[in-house]
Amino acid sequence: MLYLDYAATTPVDPRVLEEMTPYFCEVYGNPSSRHAMGEKAQAAVEEARKTIANQINAKPSEVIFTGGACEANNLCIKGIAECYEEAVHFITSSIEHKSMLAAMKDLEEWGHKVTYVKPDAYGVIDPEDIKRAIQPDTILCSIMHVNNEIGTIQPIHDIADACHEQGVIFHTDATQSFGKMPLDIADGLDLVSASAHKIYGPKGTGFLYCNSEIPLKCQISGGSQENGARAGTINVPGVVGFAKATKIACGKLEEEYERLEELEGVFLNEIYQNVPLTYLQGDEDYKVPWICNLCFYDVDGEQLRQALSDEGICISRSSACAKSGAASHVLDGMGTRDDLSSGALRISFGRNTTKDDVIRCARAIAHYVDQLRG
Amino acid sequence: MLYLDYAATTPVDPRVLEEMTPYFCEVYGNPSSRHAMGEKAQAAVEEARKTIANQINAKPSEVIFTGGACEANNLCIKGIAECYEEAVHFITSSIEHKSMLAAMKDLEEWGHKVTYVKPDAYGVIDPEDIKRAIQPDTILCSIMHVNNEIGTIQPIHDIADACHEQGVIFHTDATQSFGKMPLDIADGLDLVSASAHKIYGPKGTGFLYCNSEIPLKCQISGGSQENGARAGTINVPGVVGFAKATKIACGKLEEEYERLEELEGVFLNEIYQNVPLTYLQGDEDYKVPWICNLCFYDVDGEQLRQALSDEGICISRSSACAKSGAASHVLDGMGTRDDLSSGALRISFGRNTTKDDVIRCARAIAHYVDQLRG
Repeated sequence: MLYLDYAATTPVDPRVLEEMTPYFCEVYGNPSSRHAMGEKAQAAVEEARKTIANQINAKPSEVIFTGGACEANNLCIKGIAECYEEAVHFITSSIEHKSMLAAMKDLEEWGHKVTYVKPDAYGVIDPEDIKRAIQPDTILCSIMHVNNEIGTIQPIHDIADACHEQGVIFHTDATQSFGKMPLDIADGLDLVSASAHKIYGPKGTGFLYCNSEIPLKCQISGGSQENGARAGTINVPGVVGFAKATKIACGKLEEEYERLEELEGVFLNEIYQNVPLTYLQGDEDYKVPWICNLCFYDVDGEQLRQALSDEGICISRSSACAKSGAASHVLDGMGTRDDLSSGALRISFGRNTTKDDVIRCARAIAHYVDQLRG
Repeated sequence: MLYLDYAATTPVDPRVLEEMTPYFCEVYGNPSSRHAMGEKAQAAVEEARKTIANQINAKPSEVIFTGGACEANNLCIKGIAECYEEAVHFITSSIEHKSMLAAMKDLEEWGHKVTYVKPDAYGVIDPEDIKRAIQPDTILCSIMHVNNEIGTIQPIHDIADACHEQGVIFHTDATQSFGKMPLDIADGLDLVSASAHKIYGPKGTGFLYCNSEIPLKCQISGGSQENGARAGTINVPGVVGFAKATKIACGKLEEEYERLEELEGVFLNEIYQNVPLTYLQGDEDYKVPWICNLCFYDVDGEQLRQALSDEGICISRSSACAKSGAASHVLDGMGTRDDLSSGALRISFGRNTTKDDVIRCARAIAHYVDQLRG
């Protein structure tokens, strides 16, 4: 089996699982319990929090552990909206992750206003468009760092500047970039969401970084865990694993980026040489190398995906979170023509991907595109 | 170290961890991905869902996996409240878990009305009081099955009947009973919350059972996971572990209940013989045997807890979710006198607890109570 869907999820690194293991059966205390077993668990949680905070240059007390990035996005958007009794205004883009778009829809149902800024044809959000969207009652703008379907890197620092000039809070969903690219809150990030399972950590763990000066109403209410920002017994093995995964990933950030850039080159070269009428979505210069969204003209993408799957090549059409068969809202938002987006595949590389893998994948694609077009 | 805080959390059963292990590094797919790796993960999730649903006699499609019971309680209460545009009425008790009370407080902030029914001096909720609390616009009543601080078993079937007579939905937080006592939705349970880490499963996983006829607005919005009721990549090892823990626990339900009853008898006998002026909270005939809330007259409970902790005996004063040092809202709600509740300890037994353990604990308590009173 050849897995090339690393943007959907990643295998847990065996070193991560090893680090987590004692916290299942041995150091099993509830971090909120005030006794030796609880305090050991608590110490592990705080150590994990410190590791993650350090990585983005934040204070540990500003890192809120959640059950994943979807929860973190919802907590951010709704937790800030709930601090306002009157209707206020939010900004996001039309190509955000489903959890952001759905949370924004919820805000609209609550009576707030939302502007969905459109990207250009390459899937890039123009900071000038954000500036133009800001209204006197705009509270927050959320733009993801790296798009999960096409890999576009958004100019989040310029967008953050545009927001701050007019007193607007800036949030970025860094699920596809945390642990893969440098990320520093000093670059204007007021809130950041991320997830462990995209960086070889466990599913079911994420975090929301929230600047301590920003008021946030908890969404899962209850006990005083996470400084009152998120109730529920902390998933101790989960956060320990998240921290270990962060350490491993961030230790080889540039090296791995370069390796993936090389793989992408080999892959695209192979595709371009052998599959005519293929269009890479997004701008090659402004995207991460591990996500390639390819549109094959005059091909039914679903049949192509299935043919590859039958041959043991695991690839998605778009986000795993999207409803099966539904058109991609990202390609749609970019204005990609239907006869191209209907033949789209998202191929995503990861730590275990080799040059042979990408060549095998490219050749299989060439074979089946040929067959399906024929 | 002697751990007697099983009501706060439990160690993961090694058989549970073994069952989970392949889903970290080998079968690591995103269950929402449409390829072989995703489908394997999806199959494991659906198998887990079936196991848990069967246990409470529900349909698998009615089991919504969450990040824990706190999230499940919040989802239940807020998810139903959000289906009503006008202000409606809810009923709960004053001795529920913090996550229920806090979620209800949120509803009040949203403009809804909540009645907090008080228990009797034994911590039992009278179904007649629920009947009296029902108003024409009452939507839902939530009463926990087993109280987490004093172990009282609530007459949930009679309460459910009282609710249904007047068209009120009934929810029970079964976090302290699921996998420890029989639980059947046919007994009038419209919604049920539970958690894995109380039954030797992993932290970070819970479920909300919700009868398919009850409308529920998702709280973590995004993808179409969990039939649209809860977005976010499913914690595959977590739910697989939850199912295994459920199987193990439910396979020895009665046997373990009887064993713990015996242990409780030995423990209380030892306490009553050696520690004068000790009062067990709740009614001995209407409580589970694994939670003993003891009030020691004229003793500073915090000093007693600390002395036991220093000797390696891990015991809590009340719920792990309560703020440290705060008075117990449960004892307060029952009308327990301050000079008793200030000397309260919650001792809770579990699968690894032996007769020697409870005798050691009782003797240590006798020793330190004597010392602290002297």
